[in-house]
Amino acid sequence: MVRYPVRMTFLNTLLAAQEETDSLLCVGLDPDPSLLPLSVGGRSTGDAVVAFCRAIIDATAAVACAYKPNLAFFEALGSDGHRILHEVVRCIPKGRVVIADGKRGDIGNTARMYARAVFEELDCTACTVSPYMGRDAVEPFLEFAGKGVFVLARTSNAGAGDFQELNVGNEPLYLHVARRVREWGEGKPGTAGLVVGATAAGGLAVLRREAPDLPFLVPGVGAQGGDVEVVVREAAVGGAPLVVNSSRQILYASSGADFAAAAEREARQLRDAINNARRTAHPG
Amino acid sequence: MVRYPVRMTFLNTLLAAQEETDSLLCVGLDPDPSLLPLSVGGRSTGDAVVAFCRAIIDATAAVACAYKPNLAFFEALGSDGHRILHEVVRCIPKGRVVIADGKRGDIGNTARMYARAVFEELDCTACTVSPYMGRDAVEPFLEFAGKGVFVLARTSNAGAGDFQELNVGNEPLYLHVARRVREWGEGKPGTAGLVVGATAAGGLAVLRREAPDLPFLVPGVGAQGGDVEVVVREAAVGGAPLVVNSSRQILYASSGADFAAAAEREARQLRDAINNARRTAHPG
Repeated sequence: MVRYPVRMTFLNTLLAAQEETDSLLCVGLDPDPSLLPLSVGGRSTGDAVVAFCRAIIDATAAVACAYKPNLAFFEALGSDGHRILHEVVRCIPKGRVVIADGKRGDIGNTARMYARAVFEELDCTACTVSPYMGRDAVEPFLEFAGKGVFVLARTSNAGAGDFQELNVGNEPLYLHVARRVREWGEGKPGTAGLVVGATAAGGLAVLRREAPDLPFLVPGVGAQGGDVEVVVREAAVGGAPLVVNSSRQILYASSGADFAAAAEREARQLRDAINNARRTAHPG
Repeated sequence: MVRYPVRMTFLNTLLAAQEETDSLLCVGLDPDPSLLPLSVGGRSTGDAVVAFCRAIIDATAAVACAYKPNLAFFEALGSDGHRILHEVVRCIPKGRVVIADGKRGDIGNTARMYARAVFEELDCTACTVSPYMGRDAVEPFLEFAGKGVFVLARTSNAGAGDFQELNVGNEPLYLHVARRVREWGEGKPGTAGLVVGATAAGGLAVLRREAPDLPFLVPGVGAQGGDVEVVVREAAVGGAPLVVNSSRQILYASSGADFAAAAEREARQLRDAINNARRTAHPG
């Protein structure tokens, strides 16, 4: 009998990266040309963005399990943006998870194209998806074996409550979304996850009870004001899988020639703060 | 006293294009390499996509007020996708509205980058936006004077009801979304619009009552099964602004060497069917 190798699920890939780096930290790559340190060279804006991202990645790779390129910042560079994005993704070392943050969401045949774009063409490990259009907007992403899909549940931004907190049958909308995502992910172990903002007061704990096994991608610590200890206490219950993202706080830790060293310091501090919070909140 | 010229609003631009072409029809550009007619040449897939889209645009420009490039289909082409997209957008004649269909939606600083990408870099007239993340995901798009923003309300796909139809205070979620979009667009006349699927049973009429003046972008006629007469009767009440999109039915009307002529015929028939429905449902 021929035995086929067991294919790694996304969750296994993520946990392996977290073990290797002893880190739950994801570094968000939001390269804003107006914020790049002057010391970053390059004949063009695109070259400067690649050089900046490469320096950030090299400086933080020992303490980050994942990178999250924010597609908007690359698209704002114009027709060359996706070429630059591809180049940046290739700078990320093997063994790190790459989360394409595009929050796509469209009808079935279009969602399949977006999934192909991020998983096959861009060769990312995971992506973010918007749930508003329902099941056929999400499922084409879930069908890629070995890839991860973080669906927006409760986000961290100022307007997050406008619709996500609306009361549906005595529960907030985001809880309905989480429940459906969990259902859609059944039979596809280690694939579905949720985006849950660090600033969602109480939302993390509610969502963790609803989805005890799903990986959570938590943005909003640092620049957006989320508290690491609360995030870890509420989202890492029982060792539940968690990725904590920080972007601006790390990328723009210094605008001087020492920007990469400053990013490394900032990333290491955040990595350690997360690990300390794990030991305190969930000992053993 | 210096008098400044009155800047055209998006709505004025749209109405001018509709008058010039006597058409409410938007042709969706969803170029799927696996469906391109063999007769389309090109040394590469990218070249073939540009040649195909150019032929479709040239063939239909007399009967279409707008074109809607679907960003997913370009991104699925890989790192060159956005360059190809830019090239296709440049094929669209002046005087036609160009709606970048990307359904973006992200936190404020990221939404500003997406808005810059579609309105400045890609130089489109309008775009589609997903509302799930709330006000700060939508407003950066509304701040571009002269541009149009179609926010998803009730879409046309199979899973549209999963969340959009959820009951919030005795009303479907999509109605809450429409109300907020209308509020956010106040003070920015002719900017905000809604995406309302042709297959949303009753949804068109409900949304038109809620937002009597907002332009509606209605996908889902043709391949997705929406009925032109119902769409016009419910959405064009009192001459309310309406754009009816069709993609696959026009693009892939023939897989032979006559694909452009077939597309023209299909587009013209749909344009005429919409105009007939207007005369019948809303005479005078």
